[in-house]
Amino acid sequence: IDAEKKTITVRNNDEGKEFALPFDSLILGLGAEPVNLSIPGAKEFIGRGIHFVSNLTEAENLQKAALDSNMKSAVVVGGGAIGLEVAVGLKHLGLDVHITKRTPPPFPGALDPSMGPYITDKLEEMGMHLHFGKGIDKISGDDSVTSVEIAGETIPCDIVVMAVGMRARTGLAEGCGLEVSRNGILTDDRMETSVPGIYAVGDCIESFSRIDGSRASMQLATAAYQMGTIAGINAAGGTTKYRGVLNTFLSMVGDMEVSAVGLTTEDAKDAGFENAKGIVTKGLIKPHFMPDATKLVLKLVVDGNDGKLLGAQAVGEQGAAWRINILSLAIGTGMTVFDIANAEFAYCPPVSDVYDILSQAADIAIKRLKLQRPG
Amino acid sequence: IDAEKKTITVRNNDEGKEFALPFDSLILGLGAEPVNLSIPGAKEFIGRGIHFVSNLTEAENLQKAALDSNMKSAVVVGGGAIGLEVAVGLKHLGLDVHITKRTPPPFPGALDPSMGPYITDKLEEMGMHLHFGKGIDKISGDDSVTSVEIAGETIPCDIVVMAVGMRARTGLAEGCGLEVSRNGILTDDRMETSVPGIYAVGDCIESFSRIDGSRASMQLATAAYQMGTIAGINAAGGTTKYRGVLNTFLSMVGDMEVSAVGLTTEDAKDAGFENAKGIVTKGLIKPHFMPDATKLVLKLVVDGNDGKLLGAQAVGEQGAAWRINILSLAIGTGMTVFDIANAEFAYCPPVSDVYDILSQAADIAIKRLKLQRPG
Repeated sequence: IDAEKKTITVRNNDEGKEFALPFDSLILGLGAEPVNLSIPGAKEFIGRGIHFVSNLTEAENLQKAALDSNMKSAVVVGGGAIGLEVAVGLKHLGLDVHITKRTPPPFPGALDPSMGPYITDKLEEMGMHLHFGKGIDKISGDDSVTSVEIAGETIPCDIVVMAVGMRARTGLAEGCGLEVSRNGILTDDRMETSVPGIYAVGDCIESFSRIDGSRASMQLATAAYQMGTIAGINAAGGTTKYRGVLNTFLSMVGDMEVSAVGLTTEDAKDAGFENAKGIVTKGLIKPHFMPDATKLVLKLVVDGNDGKLLGAQAVGEQGAAWRINILSLAIGTGMTVFDIANAEFAYCPPVSDVYDILSQAADIAIKRLKLQRPG
Repeated sequence: IDAEKKTITVRNNDEGKEFALPFDSLILGLGAEPVNLSIPGAKEFIGRGIHFVSNLTEAENLQKAALDSNMKSAVVVGGGAIGLEVAVGLKHLGLDVHITKRTPPPFPGALDPSMGPYITDKLEEMGMHLHFGKGIDKISGDDSVTSVEIAGETIPCDIVVMAVGMRARTGLAEGCGLEVSRNGILTDDRMETSVPGIYAVGDCIESFSRIDGSRASMQLATAAYQMGTIAGINAAGGTTKYRGVLNTFLSMVGDMEVSAVGLTTEDAKDAGFENAKGIVTKGLIKPHFMPDATKLVLKLVVDGNDGKLLGAQAVGEQGAAWRINILSLAIGTGMTVFDIANAEFAYCPPVSDVYDILSQAADIAIKRLKLQRPG
């Protein structure tokens, strides 16, 4: 990219030729690449037992390796969405699966630690071996991986999956002089970088929170999609603003939906909402007489001063994501628990109860936090 | 009820005794009763083939009758939620089922006529005989019902289900001098009737629309539940207001969710939104590669002037109700299609796509109505 001359140099790999393309506007969607750990063996065994899962080819390679009948045991490093979803997949393919992460609770940044046991219980129920709060210190092998060392314990394994996060791909941007932070390319709310006419979107940028405007790195597909739309409109001469990320999140841990949006209780306090409280509600997603009335645990993170919704977390076999989507709309538009208490949801026993757990949660928050209903 | 002396007279049916109870506040939840038609035979055969379905006992009586092996054929009168759900139930019990309603489209007041075919196709697929846009003129029989006459045609049948609507139960209220309209007991937004200290909630009142404040009769359980909460708070000395009904509606037609909220396109125009437009979006509820990526038809009713959401309707095997719930929150708080376009929904292939049909519908409305995105 030549930012001054407003041209990019493109290589045609088939013909081995390079050619220049001029631009008025340029949109960068460079993505992110998986982080590796700086522990002994972590570089050495890449392609020889160590796998990443950041694109379809890598996922297919991992599946192929897992289907090899010589492969008995896998260690997944990381307890976020990619780590846990891959762990469940490997378990389904018949491997003995260990999961290790350095900090104790799963889905850090999305879930409060108190929600962790619902996920760890599920994983243990599925027969996984959890090493949470214990770091992996070494990967050993000969031709390929044969064991790892986790908190002093040697665990024999054939496959190691590195799922410890993604780092914004910023090399090309830095090379042409765009401002870049530790988290990614910097843009304004029009998705324009520090160089006018050059936009950047998705996993390669440092974004900002829709809740308090603070800088945030949240690499989720729906946010990337919206940023792309915004950048496209602005790059084509329109004027529109991105509202910021909400971190609306969904992961399937086996047959269980784990969904969240906004700030965790701790993150809310760190962000200056000193009176943020987490309010947990447990209930059924349908009337008790329906055979598929499964349980849901719903946590609201609420500003105790005024009832403003700051975050929400839900775990259950069904119905977590759509309730979180409702709360995402609410949080993104600055609503309070009163708006949820006043919301009118559709009732029909095969789908929902007359007093939904969402409404219950809002009413419980109002009572628990002694909030004054508006007159 | 003696509204002046603030006492009610209660009869203890076991002992046959009456006694007086004084009150400071009184809350009436009198409910509604099923409407009957004024056609020949309609009164005569009550209990002798004609059924209503307004409570559990009536539903059990109908089920018992339908399970009688002599019963071969049923005619359901009415094409709203109760009529169609009962029709599906009777069909499942093995009866030959006819459905008749005087106006052509199903779910009038909730769905635009253009959404009708998705429901009528489904009913016909299930083997029902539809007589929509044709009135029932006569019910005939001897000991019990043997046939009905629909638009000149005689249809032999053993069971007639009257599901032509519910009328607010207002007798007790009128008897003690409360103001009552044709639709029910009149209350203010605190759920207080024309007599201070006496409140009324649920199916027995005439309510008001949350969208434009106009008087409305919408007898749905979630609205009744909220009115009860509001009346309870006010009756106990608190001060809070009911926001009005949104008519958030869900009915299962067999395995298909039919859901709606707010105004139909026609009702929106009648309510003064002259530039109201219906925008239809069809799509899948999950990524196309998921085996259970079922179809959904979503209609938004939008004010063409400013993009304000006025209503929404959705029909599909799954995922209709929760999207309508999101739109209910949006409509109830005065949002536009831009708020939905900006909403960040959770993405995970087993549950949802990265560009949900809700977001698509909002973007399509913005383009189709040439709405200007806010800067």
